[in-house]
Amino acid sequence: MKRKTIGNTQCPIARSLERVGDWWNILILREAFYGVARFDDFQANLGIATNTLTRRLNDLVAGGLLERRMYNEKPPRHEYVLTDVGRSFKPVLLMLVAWGNENFAPEGRSVDLVDPGTGQPIEPVLIDKVTGRPLSEGVKVIAGPAAEAAIRRRFERRHNL
Amino acid sequence: MKRKTIGNTQCPIARSLERVGDWWNILILREAFYGVARFDDFQANLGIATNTLTRRLNDLVAGGLLERRMYNEKPPRHEYVLTDVGRSFKPVLLMLVAWGNENFAPEGRSVDLVDPGTGQPIEPVLIDKVTGRPLSEGVKVIAGPAAEAAIRRRFERRHNL
Repeated sequence: MKRKTIGNTQCPIARSLERVGDWWNILILREAFYGVARFDDFQANLGIATNTLTRRLNDLVAGGLLERRMYNEKPPRHEYVLTDVGRSFKPVLLMLVAWGNENFAPEGRSVDLVDPGTGQPIEPVLIDKVTGRPLSEGVKVIAGPAAEAAIRRRFERRHNL
Repeated sequence: MKRKTIGNTQCPIARSLERVGDWWNILILREAFYGVARFDDFQANLGIATNTLTRRLNDLVAGGLLERRMYNEKPPRHEYVLTDVGRSFKPVLLMLVAWGNENFAPEGRSVDLVDPGTGQPIEPVLIDKVTGRPLSEGVKVIAGPAAEAAIRRRFERRHNL
């Protein structure tokens, strides 16, 4: 990762952003989800500078989100594929699609999410897996078992998301 | 916004990242959700440089995620509060908490999400609002009604998220 110093290093949002905070990284993950694996294809689809793409791919490999695999020995050629951790980023991407469509598409949607079986439009919403309750009404955030003293103190006051 | 040139400007992910792509912006939104509104409080909680915070707050106001309000006339003092668009970013933040807790908390969770009423732990999952189906099996992404020719061509091939 390039910038190591992010405010509160125990915060799970901050730790996640260390891996994907720069927007190029998230767009590279988007491409990986769409099946792109080779350097030239990432570059063609994203219009990103060679040195930037090299650095970002290395960051994503170091962060454990992509795996670098040799697909040709002579000459040596590598491809980049999502790890399990990388794959688990999918719900964040889906919410970014929904949020972008909702707020930043004044001319109409450029992409739609649909059910792969029925082709019906999909509207992603967050629920609690255990109770099935929608999370739109809010969630309480409390200090967890591994929280440092500063986090414990902070979350003595009410914090909601 | 600082960098205007993001690969594909019609992509809803890219458009969203233009508003929040830099990690500071997302951490500022986190603070705003936790009720922080004043410059000094953002700065104290995030340990962010004055000029960086000023720029990021201005970006978030320009992007329509925060609103700048005067709370004191003499001397003039402003606070920053979430707009409706800013509030609608909450599910992305919740998924970032869940993703960080799942993958980047080797010593255990520093924060937990719990039900405000019952105090029971919450595990956010994405479902389709219409059918109630979990989206973990995947969603098809297709060109939307406002898609430009390049996007239409691209999505002629199968794209899943």
